[in-house]
Amino acid sequence: MILYGYYRSSAAYRVRIALNLKGITVEQRFCHLRKGEQRDPDYLRLNPQGLVPALELDGGALLTQSLAICEYLEETHPEPPLLPKDPVLRGKVRAFAQAIACDIHPVQNLKVLNRLKSLGLSQDQANAWARDTIAEGLAACEALAAQGRGGPFCFGDRPSLADLCLVPQLYNARRFGVELGGLPRLLAAEAACQALPAFQDAAPERQPDAE
Amino acid sequence: MILYGYYRSSAAYRVRIALNLKGITVEQRFCHLRKGEQRDPDYLRLNPQGLVPALELDGGALLTQSLAICEYLEETHPEPPLLPKDPVLRGKVRAFAQAIACDIHPVQNLKVLNRLKSLGLSQDQANAWARDTIAEGLAACEALAAQGRGGPFCFGDRPSLADLCLVPQLYNARRFGVELGGLPRLLAAEAACQALPAFQDAAPERQPDAE
Repeated sequence: MILYGYYRSSAAYRVRIALNLKGITVEQRFCHLRKGEQRDPDYLRLNPQGLVPALELDGGALLTQSLAICEYLEETHPEPPLLPKDPVLRGKVRAFAQAIACDIHPVQNLKVLNRLKSLGLSQDQANAWARDTIAEGLAACEALAAQGRGGPFCFGDRPSLADLCLVPQLYNARRFGVELGGLPRLLAAEAACQALPAFQDAAPERQPDAE
Repeated sequence: MILYGYYRSSAAYRVRIALNLKGITVEQRFCHLRKGEQRDPDYLRLNPQGLVPALELDGGALLTQSLAICEYLEETHPEPPLLPKDPVLRGKVRAFAQAIACDIHPVQNLKVLNRLKSLGLSQDQANAWARDTIAEGLAACEALAAQGRGGPFCFGDRPSLADLCLVPQLYNARRFGVELGGLPRLLAAEAACQALPAFQDAAPERQPDAE
């Protein structure tokens, strides 16, 4: 399989963690988002959304959207699981993941911030937008994780889809200088994750395209 | 089960369609988003994100995030299915749903538009932001659906998670005056959906809290 990614894309980071946790090796190709390579016609033919990540399967089919890719990996490589067995808990884990993947990340990504600037807002205003979006979203995630079944991970004693969204979002939070002191539950889950090679090896600065 | 919703929330609209398709009856309660009822402390205790929909299960557990709720309904009430059986196709359907639920809807919702206005942008600029976000996102969805396996629905001969995201997003698109002429594949899928009572009965104007 071929993973199209970018070292600092938090959506690609999620998929790298999932692949590492499941022990799946892929070829990595890179799409430099700040140079606009995601708008290259050849890439748009692969992924009409012009986003990373995208996963090209061995048969040539292409999957997009990080959470859809993770669900595909879960269905085709069930061990170790990224979702618990109980349907209600699966719902809680997915909701946490989507609280990040739908309601935080897309509202603070590079594309939205560039658009704010094109409307005349300053870089400081764009950064404050990102910071406020992340802070408000993570505060809700802290409460959602508290509804879970204990740690050390977001939902129990093994990393799940929730953790692989959390760790990249905390990485983004620090880039924007978000105050994280009110998030003890999330920081504890992050610490448990960062002790695992699957998370360590997926970090942006360890990727071949890191600058 | 109790569904907390708002007639014009496109995320709640998705869940109403899923419930109708599966023939599940729930009690509906309403959270008036324009009056700020989603920030009521009692509601925030239920859903720390302060968003609709939320589904209270018979045992009292609460599920949030529309797509997580739909996956829960799919797992606990498998017939009729909202996802195909084949893992690659499931991935394509989920990616289409997430292209709307992550990359269009949260960037054009009421909260973001209010925030743009609080930064000094005009109502016209906020509306243009919504219009451009929807138009660009739906154009990518048109291409994603074209990679599917034919109609009349987005991905084949029965409605899926893709269609129940598409129909509410097209409803929003029309509210903002988005030009839909270049989306024949999506409009054909919408027409197939709108022929079904499950979609008709979920429409915003048919809800008890519609104004």
